[in-house]
Amino acid sequence: LGATESLARLVSETTWDAIADQAHHARRSLLNFFATGIGSAHDPAVAAGLSVLAPFSGPATSALIGRGERLDMMGAAFLNAVSANLLDFDDTHMATIIHPAAPVAAPALALAERLGAACTGRDVLTAIVLGVEVECRIGRAVSPGHYARGWHITSTCGVFGSAAAAAKLLGLPAAGIATALGIAASQSAGVVENLPSAAKNVSVGGAARNGLYAALFAQAGWGAAPLAIDGPLGWARAMGDAPDMDALTGSLGATWEIAVNTYKPYPSGIVFHAVIDACLALREELAGDAVESVLVEGSALLLARGDRPVRTERDARVSIHHAAACGLVLGRAGPHEFSLAVVNDPVVVALRDRVRAALDPALPDGAARISLVTQSGRRIETTVRSARGGLDHPLSDADLEAKLRDGVRQNGSALDADRIIDAVWSLDQAGSVAPLMAAAAGL
Amino acid sequence: LGATESLARLVSETTWDAIADQAHHARRSLLNFFATGIGSAHDPAVAAGLSVLAPFSGPATSALIGRGERLDMMGAAFLNAVSANLLDFDDTHMATIIHPAAPVAAPALALAERLGAACTGRDVLTAIVLGVEVECRIGRAVSPGHYARGWHITSTCGVFGSAAAAAKLLGLPAAGIATALGIAASQSAGVVENLPSAAKNVSVGGAARNGLYAALFAQAGWGAAPLAIDGPLGWARAMGDAPDMDALTGSLGATWEIAVNTYKPYPSGIVFHAVIDACLALREELAGDAVESVLVEGSALLLARGDRPVRTERDARVSIHHAAACGLVLGRAGPHEFSLAVVNDPVVVALRDRVRAALDPALPDGAARISLVTQSGRRIETTVRSARGGLDHPLSDADLEAKLRDGVRQNGSALDADRIIDAVWSLDQAGSVAPLMAAAAGL
Repeated sequence: LGATESLARLVSETTWDAIADQAHHARRSLLNFFATGIGSAHDPAVAAGLSVLAPFSGPATSALIGRGERLDMMGAAFLNAVSANLLDFDDTHMATIIHPAAPVAAPALALAERLGAACTGRDVLTAIVLGVEVECRIGRAVSPGHYARGWHITSTCGVFGSAAAAAKLLGLPAAGIATALGIAASQSAGVVENLPSAAKNVSVGGAARNGLYAALFAQAGWGAAPLAIDGPLGWARAMGDAPDMDALTGSLGATWEIAVNTYKPYPSGIVFHAVIDACLALREELAGDAVESVLVEGSALLLARGDRPVRTERDARVSIHHAAACGLVLGRAGPHEFSLAVVNDPVVVALRDRVRAALDPALPDGAARISLVTQSGRRIETTVRSARGGLDHPLSDADLEAKLRDGVRQNGSALDADRIIDAVWSLDQAGSVAPLMAAAAGL
Repeated sequence: LGATESLARLVSETTWDAIADQAHHARRSLLNFFATGIGSAHDPAVAAGLSVLAPFSGPATSALIGRGERLDMMGAAFLNAVSANLLDFDDTHMATIIHPAAPVAAPALALAERLGAACTGRDVLTAIVLGVEVECRIGRAVSPGHYARGWHITSTCGVFGSAAAAAKLLGLPAAGIATALGIAASQSAGVVENLPSAAKNVSVGGAARNGLYAALFAQAGWGAAPLAIDGPLGWARAMGDAPDMDALTGSLGATWEIAVNTYKPYPSGIVFHAVIDACLALREELAGDAVESVLVEGSALLLARGDRPVRTERDARVSIHHAAACGLVLGRAGPHEFSLAVVNDPVVVALRDRVRAALDPALPDGAARISLVTQSGRRIETTVRSARGGLDHPLSDADLEAKLRDGVRQNGSALDADRIIDAVWSLDQAGSVAPLMAAAAGL
């Protein structure tokens, strides 16, 4: 059995019963997806994107989360994926650094809205589990060389996850699912060089939309090469080296990638999370003492990513200094603490100026040691080796609910957070996704 | 000046006057585009594609060539590019093996229809010359490693040409054009492994459509990395090796890639054209004698591509044996001679069975020697080193008109070939593309 056929057969044969024990992972992923998508839904980039897409929408079947408008499922899938991923505050599959939900949940939900009562909550949860599985399996098979070569793995692998989820919801047979994956291979795109720019949105949104097209073209009878993914002139070799076939198909159906999905507590680069955690802990010990100086020690990666001046929100999200200020001065690090007003707050600026970063090659990536001197001369220190939100310290369901509430606050419109939370937790009981999407769009 | 800025400045600053002496090349390219697009417009693959795209079309502004329907410009650009390229009978840029027109002319025309009277024939011709320039320059910069790695260069470079042409028609300033090219880099996709399948259509159509999106997102204010194409984690390195900067920007504005575009006389793989030419010549010498046996000699490439049994139209298009039968038995090799009825014609099958292929390593790629024995025992032989349609023997304007008429016949509906030919040749005098597109769509 070729790799594509193996994946297609898994997608085809897996029923709700087989993934029911993964469904809570899928619901957690969805709650996080709505938290970040709703939070960023009124960002000017999303509004500009909508202005581009709206003239090219067919009959509007699918809602824009965190907003009132509808578009056809292609436009809604694109834009909801963009919102969810905009600040890289969405979920992270640590083995690949894929953000799994945006390119999979956005198209699955948009298609499910179009299908209406033909598609239950369980159908969507099943499709999302399988889409994430395909996306992250393919990502593992080409990691780490693929990302290192310049491929934005969330985009390039996301289109396979979208295609798999869509093909499952459309009820394609295994051969059709394999074709959809093969067609997805010819639409996989997105370069790392563009990550600091809005061009990132185009590949993330494109992955969501193009996976839907892949499934529809397959349904309409267009074919694909049987080895589009793993053949000699296929996707994996073009985009990297030979794929790791064991990562692609080993233990298929016995392990689930959605079970190792993680959720960020803070809208900053993931390497800064240990800095924030450590500073939040030290803030307790400060007990009101003023800070004289802060030394942040960490790996070369931490310093390379985060030791530079801060002027914008984007700078703040990848700053050691701002991470420390959030923990020590503000006592929290939600979306508000990375807004321009807070970034330019003189008290925050003053704390950032007291922070110095230094290399400790003995510390692993993702860890941080903070050594702090108070103005009264007291020295305190702490080291965090695995930050909140990682696999060792997963966010609780309550943490994710709080993150959703933060997203609703950031959104600024009158969305009902409880209604969204309830609709996500009870999605496996819902006859369609309509109540969930109505809640998430404020309809 | 970076490469992207250089290309963007060329696109921004070049006026009709600067390319007027290239305009006839652009008109020839367009005539060939319509010939192949009209010829394949009723292929079942195009009909299936339309069934997928139609439900996701906004207000229909743009015509499907060779058909009656309209879609929004995204759908029309996608599907017209698919039709034009479906049989690889469209134009060929020999240095890169890009088929330049499909991903550039299709979106330029679809956008021009949307813009209406704001966009003259000269505007479109200028945009096409510039789109082809950007597409083929970028293709040259990454050739031959890019294609060899598995990238379908018409698709992967076509999106840049589409973005450049669209940005020009939209009147974006140089900075906006550079952004459009950077956004295109995050949408560049398409693998060689999929070429024998309909999945090829998805990347060719996608290149046409996504270049339009790149220009519109740039116009709406989305940004891109300045080095999206040639940066350390950018497109060129991700998709191959370091780009050849001289190919990218040397002599910019002084030479034009559209001047070295070529057009195929026969809807078969280009290496078989010398076989057809030689056999057409020998047919004259046969003067009615029956053929006993045929020996076709050529390079390893010719034999690797074309020495295998023929069952389908697709097989026939890449067959030494069928190429010989076209020349010797049928006396022509247009779309009709590659249809299933002709491929299975017993007389054609019988001739194919008399053809043997052998390696002559002294012959270059693209050449062929035919040695023929008649049933009366006569031996005749000829060698063709550069086939019709190549740069040494370009098709005449009359040849291209005949190809358009063939395409209209292949299409099967009541299109007026003279009207299309006139509209192409006089496009530089037209106030808009409406008359041309009405003629090409039979409206």
